[in-house]
Amino acid sequence: MDLRPGERLDDLGRKGMKIIQHRAQVPFALDPVLLAHFVRVHRRDRVLDLGTGTGIIPLLLAGRHPDANITGIELQPELAEMAERSVLLNELQQRIRILCGDYRQLRVLSGREQFDVVTANPPYLKAGTGQLSPNPLRAGSRHELQGSLFETVQSGATAVRFGGRVAIVFLAERTVDLVESLRVHRVEPKRLRFVHSRAGRPASLLLVEGVKGGGSGLEVLPPLIIYEEGQRFTAEMQELYDT
Amino acid sequence: MDLRPGERLDDLGRKGMKIIQHRAQVPFALDPVLLAHFVRVHRRDRVLDLGTGTGIIPLLLAGRHPDANITGIELQPELAEMAERSVLLNELQQRIRILCGDYRQLRVLSGREQFDVVTANPPYLKAGTGQLSPNPLRAGSRHELQGSLFETVQSGATAVRFGGRVAIVFLAERTVDLVESLRVHRVEPKRLRFVHSRAGRPASLLLVEGVKGGGSGLEVLPPLIIYEEGQRFTAEMQELYDT
Repeated sequence: MDLRPGERLDDLGRKGMKIIQHRAQVPFALDPVLLAHFVRVHRRDRVLDLGTGTGIIPLLLAGRHPDANITGIELQPELAEMAERSVLLNELQQRIRILCGDYRQLRVLSGREQFDVVTANPPYLKAGTGQLSPNPLRAGSRHELQGSLFETVQSGATAVRFGGRVAIVFLAERTVDLVESLRVHRVEPKRLRFVHSRAGRPASLLLVEGVKGGGSGLEVLPPLIIYEEGQRFTAEMQELYDT
Repeated sequence: MDLRPGERLDDLGRKGMKIIQHRAQVPFALDPVLLAHFVRVHRRDRVLDLGTGTGIIPLLLAGRHPDANITGIELQPELAEMAERSVLLNELQQRIRILCGDYRQLRVLSGREQFDVVTANPPYLKAGTGQLSPNPLRAGSRHELQGSLFETVQSGATAVRFGGRVAIVFLAERTVDLVESLRVHRVEPKRLRFVHSRAGRPASLLLVEGVKGGGSGLEVLPPLIIYEEGQRFTAEMQELYDT
């Protein structure tokens, strides 16, 4: 096992899978887990994850979909390299490919390849708002430093094939920005699910799946509630971690 | 009491208030009740209801907000006249005014008057889709005959003052059309609530409130569930009818 100074090995919570993370980084949160569970991936789909960080979404998707072929792209070389080592550690190098680069330049990196599914867990804060982390590994996952939401959606819309799906997890309070960006890029929002930390509280996150070139007409799924009374997961959340 | 042939008198379910409806018409549904409960009306607000039909929303709002001054506008003379008689029947002529005319021509009808709040329960079906009712009183409430969703939002945005609110109930499956239209007309969606007939089922309706000239940032409220097991209202729905 190939851990560098400052790194740690965390359990992905499924089938003994592991992920390498840096101690200075915020550990992976619930959001990629929710997205990996929400997005519909069919057999042999080619999936692209934009701004993949330590590769959490590709790893989770590889665990759920044994036939999918997954690419993750990450701008920061340290993160891309950690993702690459996690792929090797889980012996998934036949099914996950990690690219290091700017996803706004995807054509240069992977040619005219088209994907069936694109996923993204973009930074939630606009550049210039909130407190910027002095640690670059953290800063990039919190703030829109390397690309705005608009650019993430644009890159997703360019990479996905006609009829393919773009799935994004984002702040519920920016729902209008997100659905508007998707429609502008001809990725019609088709499935929406709001995530509430508790029943009776406003939504914190939004899961959305759009179809490239799809007609209008949206399904708003029942909300996903994270916690019961106290800090216990709801039955649905427990099941989500078990499957 | 002044009922015409084919008409009937229905109970509004609050404080002995009544509404005149036509037997050939679909009786008023849950949607205006939900909207009247959802929209925030402050003391002495001037409220405008677009396409008011038999005046159900003005009547409900007058019952809830004793200081509000309410205008309803309706294109079909038969409906506007029924609304007018319901206003008289409930002795609300000091607080509700019914205008007969096309709300796209509102400036002509009510001058440059600006409203604090605009409400609308627009027809849910696009012209040319679904089955058109042979009865014109029904047809206009189901189909976009006298104005599209886009025109309803445009009229609301024109009639509301800067900082005022536009509240609309609409099909959840057309959420993207609605929030996009609001933003295009500089009415920023600020509060969203989805209505599910039962827990665990997709949303059927959307309640949205936008603020004219508001900044971005949306609150997605906990969903409103209509029915318990069987056909019983949930506790929240019962309370909504009682208050």
